[in-house]
Amino acid sequence: MMPLERVAVIGVGLIGGSFALALKAARASGHVVGVGREPGNLALALERGIVDSIATDAGEAAAAAELVLLAAPVAQCASLFAAIAPKLRPHAVITDAGSTKRDVIAAARAVLGAHLPRYVPAHPIAGAEHSGAAAAQADLFRGKRVVLTPVAETSPDALARVEQVWQACGARLFRMTPETHDEVFAAVSHLPHFLAYALVDEIAGRSNSAQLFGYAAGGFRDFTRIASSHPEMWRDVCIANRDALLAEIDRYGERLAALREHLEHGNGAALERAFAEARAARERWLKGDFEP
Amino acid sequence: MMPLERVAVIGVGLIGGSFALALKAARASGHVVGVGREPGNLALALERGIVDSIATDAGEAAAAAELVLLAAPVAQCASLFAAIAPKLRPHAVITDAGSTKRDVIAAARAVLGAHLPRYVPAHPIAGAEHSGAAAAQADLFRGKRVVLTPVAETSPDALARVEQVWQACGARLFRMTPETHDEVFAAVSHLPHFLAYALVDEIAGRSNSAQLFGYAAGGFRDFTRIASSHPEMWRDVCIANRDALLAEIDRYGERLAALREHLEHGNGAALERAFAEARAARERWLKGDFEP
Repeated sequence: MMPLERVAVIGVGLIGGSFALALKAARASGHVVGVGREPGNLALALERGIVDSIATDAGEAAAAAELVLLAAPVAQCASLFAAIAPKLRPHAVITDAGSTKRDVIAAARAVLGAHLPRYVPAHPIAGAEHSGAAAAQADLFRGKRVVLTPVAETSPDALARVEQVWQACGARLFRMTPETHDEVFAAVSHLPHFLAYALVDEIAGRSNSAQLFGYAAGGFRDFTRIASSHPEMWRDVCIANRDALLAEIDRYGERLAALREHLEHGNGAALERAFAEARAARERWLKGDFEP
Repeated sequence: MMPLERVAVIGVGLIGGSFALALKAARASGHVVGVGREPGNLALALERGIVDSIATDAGEAAAAAELVLLAAPVAQCASLFAAIAPKLRPHAVITDAGSTKRDVIAAARAVLGAHLPRYVPAHPIAGAEHSGAAAAQADLFRGKRVVLTPVAETSPDALARVEQVWQACGARLFRMTPETHDEVFAAVSHLPHFLAYALVDEIAGRSNSAQLFGYAAGGFRDFTRIASSHPEMWRDVCIANRDALLAEIDRYGERLAALREHLEHGNGAALERAFAEARAARERWLKGDFEP
């Protein structure tokens, strides 16, 4: 791809920082300016060479950029779009890395005006429980999926440009509608995070929590890994995708209640059948049988 | 420790097989005889050098053994104790590796008779989602916890012998009452397994499950790792510890309902607080603040 002369990364955390590093590693970017709320994190990003300069004002950083990536918690996207809209160059391409898409698109529609066709909604599927510029790594997106959810207004040129950029990062590209995206990720990502947070929160709130944690082992560690995720980011995701997530919580609650009933009635055969089917489905998934 | 001349391992799966390998590696055992239901698995155990001979009859295998380890799904312990009781040598020590303790102890009490004082209930905390002799490894228990739950009848000599054996495997030893054991592990082990199975089972049962699995990523993989655990083993654990597990499911359901309510009301502050507390508690746990 033609290298980008100037890129603005708004939110230099795990995702934004890794994106900047990946572009540099691919020689796909010239100057990268990083924008953020935390001076310490920005200073670290500069020190690690993730970004070439830093700014605290998103509009100022976006003013000269060919490409602007929003990689902040999704609830901030509305005010960030508003801050950059008046400063954007006429051909600047805007994209984001939000875990929810309908809300970010609505925010973009509300304020981007003539720039809207050059906004390409995107979601790189490459989370981790670590956050901040310290966690950024150039190969985070290698082989990972990035879902693009273009809307009717999205220009094919801008879409192609964002695809090139993510390909340069080593990602595999997929497309979905914003609605399907939000429903799918409510089930396979937002719900597990919510359930894991609930479990750790429940255990932590008990009078004997020290004893309980004291005997928790590897199964507990992996089950709850995502409960070490960024609380603000996940607050925003849950709130942004509230309706789909509520539906998932209720659906899960029904399945859990059904299994609980088998347990209460001592119906070991029904439990074993459900456990075996779950294991078989997961093994097929690990083997790659459900690649999109 | 004084090496054991002859050890019988009943159930040569991940736990039993790893125990046999660890004893051999520590030069703590002479001949190990393996007993199991699956000829293919036993043949593999023999081929891998996990055991020195194999048998299909538990009583026969136990007849000459100084130490007998029951490492089968807990629901089989009653019939296994019954099979070995008439054959045990007068000084043979019996132990088990069950994930639940009250039920296994009750089974031992019912049939072991004069051998009961030499039965030492134990639970090595070293599960994995892989099972069978193929998954056995000599260092599985290195640094891992083994909980002993002796009862009033347990002889100090037998207890000391089982402690030596597990120490030879590299394990760290802890003691609890059977009741406390079953309550603690209902919360930090049995509940997470139940929840993970429920999630995968729920997703697998949907008409769009291929699409959902297609976009599931690392968070989902780790959250559901324990849903690849042995279905029969976990059926038995759940049924054996039914009352404690039901109480945990209900307690978790209440916490989940409270968080769901915050979500429904758009109470982001309350969600973020719960998420942040969960993360903080988990980080303290990872740092080792709750070592028993």
